[in-house]
Amino acid sequence: MSITDDALKANESYAREFALEHLPMPPARKLAIVACMDARLTVEQALGLKTGDAHIIRNAGGIVTEDAIRSLIISHHLLGTQEFIIINHTDCGMLTFKGEDLAAKLEAGTDAAAVTPQSFHAFSNLEENVRQQIQRVKSHPWIPANISVRGFIYDVKTGELNEVPAGKARGKSAK
Amino acid sequence: MSITDDALKANESYAREFALEHLPMPPARKLAIVACMDARLTVEQALGLKTGDAHIIRNAGGIVTEDAIRSLIISHHLLGTQEFIIINHTDCGMLTFKGEDLAAKLEAGTDAAAVTPQSFHAFSNLEENVRQQIQRVKSHPWIPANISVRGFIYDVKTGELNEVPAGKARGKSAK
Repeated sequence: MSITDDALKANESYAREFALEHLPMPPARKLAIVACMDARLTVEQALGLKTGDAHIIRNAGGIVTEDAIRSLIISHHLLGTQEFIIINHTDCGMLTFKGEDLAAKLEAGTDAAAVTPQSFHAFSNLEENVRQQIQRVKSHPWIPANISVRGFIYDVKTGELNEVPAGKARGKSAK
Repeated sequence: MSITDDALKANESYAREFALEHLPMPPARKLAIVACMDARLTVEQALGLKTGDAHIIRNAGGIVTEDAIRSLIISHHLLGTQEFIIINHTDCGMLTFKGEDLAAKLEAGTDAAAVTPQSFHAFSNLEENVRQQIQRVKSHPWIPANISVRGFIYDVKTGELNEVPAGKARGKSAK
């Protein structure tokens, strides 16, 4: 049996016990989170959130990409969230490679001359990366200035969230 | 106290009980999931996944954007995942608006002439949307053909996942 089939079997049990049929579409806590996709971070558990509480946006690195901005705009303007949290974490895979090396390896294995993505958003300084993501949200013209935007580093060895002061992000992230 | 501060307080309790300090970086189940950010879907619970099991990628709609492809490439090529699951859901906010209307509203409220995102990826047909996302993954030159890619619709009223046969996606998604 595949892992996907295993997950479907687990879903049958979940659905049997399900008692959340009346949750409204807008998140109850008016909260949206941008976090890394890392398997060691279960966002809802780590922040004490229940199903229905928050929008959860995740990608490799917990990067405020154009796509994450798209999601945050929809989250706030259509579904009323008022606070944003950005979560990166220790021991992140994005600290372990250079985007150009990965692109070169992938290009060597395919006929495609140039394919997306343009950048893998690898980075070398975790705190600095969090500060840059905060700034990307705060500087976006379609994100109102009164939205709270705070950034954290999740420690995969302790489960703790440690806040990164917004400060001033320097330069651009490494590719 | 803000919702963010509430979440930090909950994290203190989580960290006190934390006993997962030895999880490795690669997901234990070699699984990556692309799902909608919707608050009513707690991906790990609905699929019976534990912390450490799977990469979780989420955005508005559960769309295989360039950014989701970036994350899937990193997930597979650097961290060894072998099965991908795509999850959209009933009563999705992305079925309730037109991208051009939202863009017009946002543009009217700002000085910025043209800002990202280019498209909000709203859609009008849920099953068709899932099929398109499967096809986007399967047709990408950097995603090997032997990766399992299956798509589902999560029912927010019952907690059930219902598979969408891959079939042939028609046309493009509405903006």
